[in-house]
Amino acid sequence: MTAQQDTSKRAVVLLSGGLDSATVAAWLKRDGFLVHGLTIDYGQRHAAELRAASLVAEAVGVDEHLVMRLDLRAIGGSALTDASIAVPKSDDPLADVAADIPVTYVPARNTLFLSLALGLAESRGAHTLGIGVNALDYSGYPDCRPEFITAFGHLANLATRDGVEGRPFELFTPLQDMTKVEILAKAYALDVPVAQTLSCYDPAASGAACGLCDACRLRQRAENEYESAL
Amino acid sequence: MTAQQDTSKRAVVLLSGGLDSATVAAWLKRDGFLVHGLTIDYGQRHAAELRAASLVAEAVGVDEHLVMRLDLRAIGGSALTDASIAVPKSDDPLADVAADIPVTYVPARNTLFLSLALGLAESRGAHTLGIGVNALDYSGYPDCRPEFITAFGHLANLATRDGVEGRPFELFTPLQDMTKVEILAKAYALDVPVAQTLSCYDPAASGAACGLCDACRLRQRAENEYESAL
Repeated sequence: MTAQQDTSKRAVVLLSGGLDSATVAAWLKRDGFLVHGLTIDYGQRHAAELRAASLVAEAVGVDEHLVMRLDLRAIGGSALTDASIAVPKSDDPLADVAADIPVTYVPARNTLFLSLALGLAESRGAHTLGIGVNALDYSGYPDCRPEFITAFGHLANLATRDGVEGRPFELFTPLQDMTKVEILAKAYALDVPVAQTLSCYDPAASGAACGLCDACRLRQRAENEYESAL
Repeated sequence: MTAQQDTSKRAVVLLSGGLDSATVAAWLKRDGFLVHGLTIDYGQRHAAELRAASLVAEAVGVDEHLVMRLDLRAIGGSALTDASIAVPKSDDPLADVAADIPVTYVPARNTLFLSLALGLAESRGAHTLGIGVNALDYSGYPDCRPEFITAFGHLANLATRDGVEGRPFELFTPLQDMTKVEILAKAYALDVPVAQTLSCYDPAASGAACGLCDACRLRQRAENEYESAL
């Protein structure tokens, strides 16, 4: 914590190791928040995401980085938590990503992750919950939509001691209406270690992105667009 | 699963090992539901609760009993997850239990537990979520109140594939307006193994209830009242 920090501004940010959540964490640090990063080790296909989250946490300078273990493989129902369900891939960079809810949807994941963020926030005296949802996720993931975020904010203030006693929680979702290329530009502007973030749904054990899943292709398109606009 | 069971009626019940959740599970079994019991091993003070949950699951005849580990001690902020915070006790059986939010409140616990129940339900094809909240908990715990339950139901149907696609989730909270003695009577009527349930906040390693915490005193009063009414 530096002398410039206003300790009344304290936030919990869900840090996946990806570009979006790293950008939200850097944004809050830039705005003078004391930041608690929360990463969930939920049985993702590879530990590479967790390594990326730690690198991001350090580079962005979060004040606490907590990794909690919660094995969602016992619940299953998603390509990200069940090895028997394949992650959809395409080698055509221009092919559309799925418009329906994809098999990479994890049942109730953001509800669960925001609940953990809420518990941590209340315990640490933070009242801002940062999550890197954005417009591109809307079509596919029900729990990235603005109406979900609004409903969670409402719930958070009914569910907690702080909410009931007049110290409300707010959700910080600055990427909600940004395109991927706008997020990328913002990330560079905030000195996010972009190359160290990992957005891939199915990285190699080495941490190398597959380049073929929806997340990789969306990111590759954004990088191409960003570079061509320079 | 018996031949009488209607497999379209499938529920997830949060099973703590206590009287209330055992009663909800038995109620759903009586009503012909296929029941998935979900117990969270969250770093409670003693494993006795988990043993009670297993005994209850077997006695009630749940169709699946899943124990998930999620160590909330990393979050802390409660007498139930932080050994440095004492569980309040009184040896006066007539002393009032705390009217304020007690130190046994666990930040965001029911939000978190219901989120896990929701994820399991969606994965298993269940659309009923059972939880044993009741009126006596209202004053103390914000996340036992009817307005919290209603808000969670709303969120659940925005957060999930099933909710968005028209297969809504419902919360089953039949104990909400019952007194403890009414719950006890219902439990006996449903053949719940009452003596095997454990409601204590601070049981001995042997599984013996302390007899002095709020939960023990509320239960003892209900048992006295039930017996004197026989």
